[in-house]
Amino acid sequence: MNDFGRTTLPYCSFIRPGETAPRVGVGVGTELLDLTTAAAEIVPQHARLFASGSLDPLLAAGPVVWAEVRAALRDRADARPLISLDDVELVLPFTVADYVDFYASEHHATNLGRLFRPDGEALMPNWKHLPVGYHGRAGTVVVSGTTVRRPSGQIRAGDAVEFGPSARLDIEAEIGFVVGAGSSLGQSVPVGDFDQHVFGICIVNDWSARDIQAWEYVPLGPFLGKSFATSVSPWIVPLAALEGARVDPPERDVELLPYLRYVEQWGLDLELVVTLNGEEISRPPFATTYWTAAQMLAHMTVNGASLRPGDLYASGTVSGPDAGQRGSLIEMSWNGAEPLHLADGTSRSFLLDGDVVSISAAARLADGSRLWLGQVDGEVIA
Amino acid sequence: MNDFGRTTLPYCSFIRPGETAPRVGVGVGTELLDLTTAAAEIVPQHARLFASGSLDPLLAAGPVVWAEVRAALRDRADARPLISLDDVELVLPFTVADYVDFYASEHHATNLGRLFRPDGEALMPNWKHLPVGYHGRAGTVVVSGTTVRRPSGQIRAGDAVEFGPSARLDIEAEIGFVVGAGSSLGQSVPVGDFDQHVFGICIVNDWSARDIQAWEYVPLGPFLGKSFATSVSPWIVPLAALEGARVDPPERDVELLPYLRYVEQWGLDLELVVTLNGEEISRPPFATTYWTAAQMLAHMTVNGASLRPGDLYASGTVSGPDAGQRGSLIEMSWNGAEPLHLADGTSRSFLLDGDVVSISAAARLADGSRLWLGQVDGEVIA
Repeated sequence: MNDFGRTTLPYCSFIRPGETAPRVGVGVGTELLDLTTAAAEIVPQHARLFASGSLDPLLAAGPVVWAEVRAALRDRADARPLISLDDVELVLPFTVADYVDFYASEHHATNLGRLFRPDGEALMPNWKHLPVGYHGRAGTVVVSGTTVRRPSGQIRAGDAVEFGPSARLDIEAEIGFVVGAGSSLGQSVPVGDFDQHVFGICIVNDWSARDIQAWEYVPLGPFLGKSFATSVSPWIVPLAALEGARVDPPERDVELLPYLRYVEQWGLDLELVVTLNGEEISRPPFATTYWTAAQMLAHMTVNGASLRPGDLYASGTVSGPDAGQRGSLIEMSWNGAEPLHLADGTSRSFLLDGDVVSISAAARLADGSRLWLGQVDGEVIA
Repeated sequence: MNDFGRTTLPYCSFIRPGETAPRVGVGVGTELLDLTTAAAEIVPQHARLFASGSLDPLLAAGPVVWAEVRAALRDRADARPLISLDDVELVLPFTVADYVDFYASEHHATNLGRLFRPDGEALMPNWKHLPVGYHGRAGTVVVSGTTVRRPSGQIRAGDAVEFGPSARLDIEAEIGFVVGAGSSLGQSVPVGDFDQHVFGICIVNDWSARDIQAWEYVPLGPFLGKSFATSVSPWIVPLAALEGARVDPPERDVELLPYLRYVEQWGLDLELVVTLNGEEISRPPFATTYWTAAQMLAHMTVNGASLRPGDLYASGTVSGPDAGQRGSLIEMSWNGAEPLHLADGTSRSFLLDGDVVSISAAARLADGSRLWLGQVDGEVIA
């Protein structure tokens, strides 16, 4: 694929050869519009938003401006000269303020529960009452293509505790939501205001060192097992491009508190594709995610926590009900009991040095068409 | 107290009446030097660092510059006109990049273990092997004096789950460490490089809603029970001012992995004082904290996680061995079993609306003198 078509119009930040300052770009087909240059003609009233080369000013400008810029781009973007993606470097498109990772897929949470608590209930008692989440490290969110150094840390080995490189390095295939318009401290954001605050989506690989995480995470949650790197796709797809992909989320089997009851349909029919060294290993369906992004946002702010432009929150690993739909290697290999057999004759339970993981996504629209949403790549190095 | 003396020279960011742009200030005695104005004469070669009115440029400038500015201030600060603190508003002195909260006090972790797991081991198996920590919300770190709205959220009531304001709102008296010089992704920071990266300290009140936290925190740790507000003192005291307060940390009874073995003595003899509505309720001794700030930094980066200027990490609740040295109400009131009886005739297990909490700190130097380090105040509102 790699073709964004003429109506998706995702945003990125890019650097031209020989330059150091980034520019804001818009994906048109398989090419790129230099919006930092073109804005003076396409959207002169908002041209200053693109001068810095980062999406930060556009994110902060809010939903009315987002709609005006998008309308202007739909009218005029493809009448402008475009740049080949081969000629530019895509960089992190916005400054990540806070990064939150949820745990919103019932199939993922159930699989991990079965693996780690085989004799107990697979889901914790709170899981269907609220979207479980935690804060991650914003400073180590990196753009697609950044190599990921295998982390070292404390690992439990029987009764001993040893130090060394993680032997259980994993991926988590997720969708990320980029907050544009902020909110005030002490004010919660209603579930119905989701699209007044969230600008768009990206694809996330939340790299995870399972052995480091297993030893450290009691009682305060994941820390170094996650904080070494989180990769995001360079393209932010506006929420407005996904109208046709909105679907009902899975049926709820526990009654929700009023602040989480959805007033608009914000399930999204997105299909993720995970490849390892070029070979497809999974197709996680985002539409099976139990909690919607609107519910995650309402929950994240119900205590009065404020939002800032650039806040990023991710869904957590997306796993569907079938074996071919799992979003992490620990699930695909069932914690090493069922290694993946790859076409090159090797097998994997977790990642080896040199492995390249790509996660792409496409939206399936109600009219049967598909929208390419970009991909996030990363190579593991020793 | 409130007197910083002539040699501590803490930094703040302040706004003068009728102005909107902040300025960098330096505490001298009970007054303030306007460094944004005075830098042109006191440290002309670094005057640009103070033009923005935030400490951000100074933090990023690194330890050689920190020492040069401090030396110039020691020579010349008190020869300049000073401003009364009554005439200015102190604001958040730097942009918080990532916020991490540790759990480094053995007495605190043991108290909570006894309260919540009366039949088990008080400390988790990992606790003496590594400084347990987690990421908090950087966007809701607020300066002293900001009112704290009581958070609402999901609270378990028997078998039911209800929504409402927290009935178990608590404080956590902590010391915060402000990172100046950053580090590269993939590179760990050795324990001996602590003072090459950390600029100074502040006082932290990590407000906590115990009932929200208790329901949400399994398995990914605290989230909304903490993210509604974290208050910090407006003064950042340079690490260089605390040389005389350095002491050995408590004896270690589990052998540490090499990356955590301390090469320099970075225990700090700081005494915190917690007051509730003006009445002293506790004196937590920071010197009893098991893990040093140098060890926290080495651990936080051992997986290759990078540091950015403005990263803030806090010790976690500081509690000493005695009943009068506990840093949280849940410990002071032993989870409500032993309410505090206050001088005004009321009692408290947790905070009521209108309560004002102040946490101050002073360093006890080897020569017997004391350095005032500032305080952090907050009033709870409904």
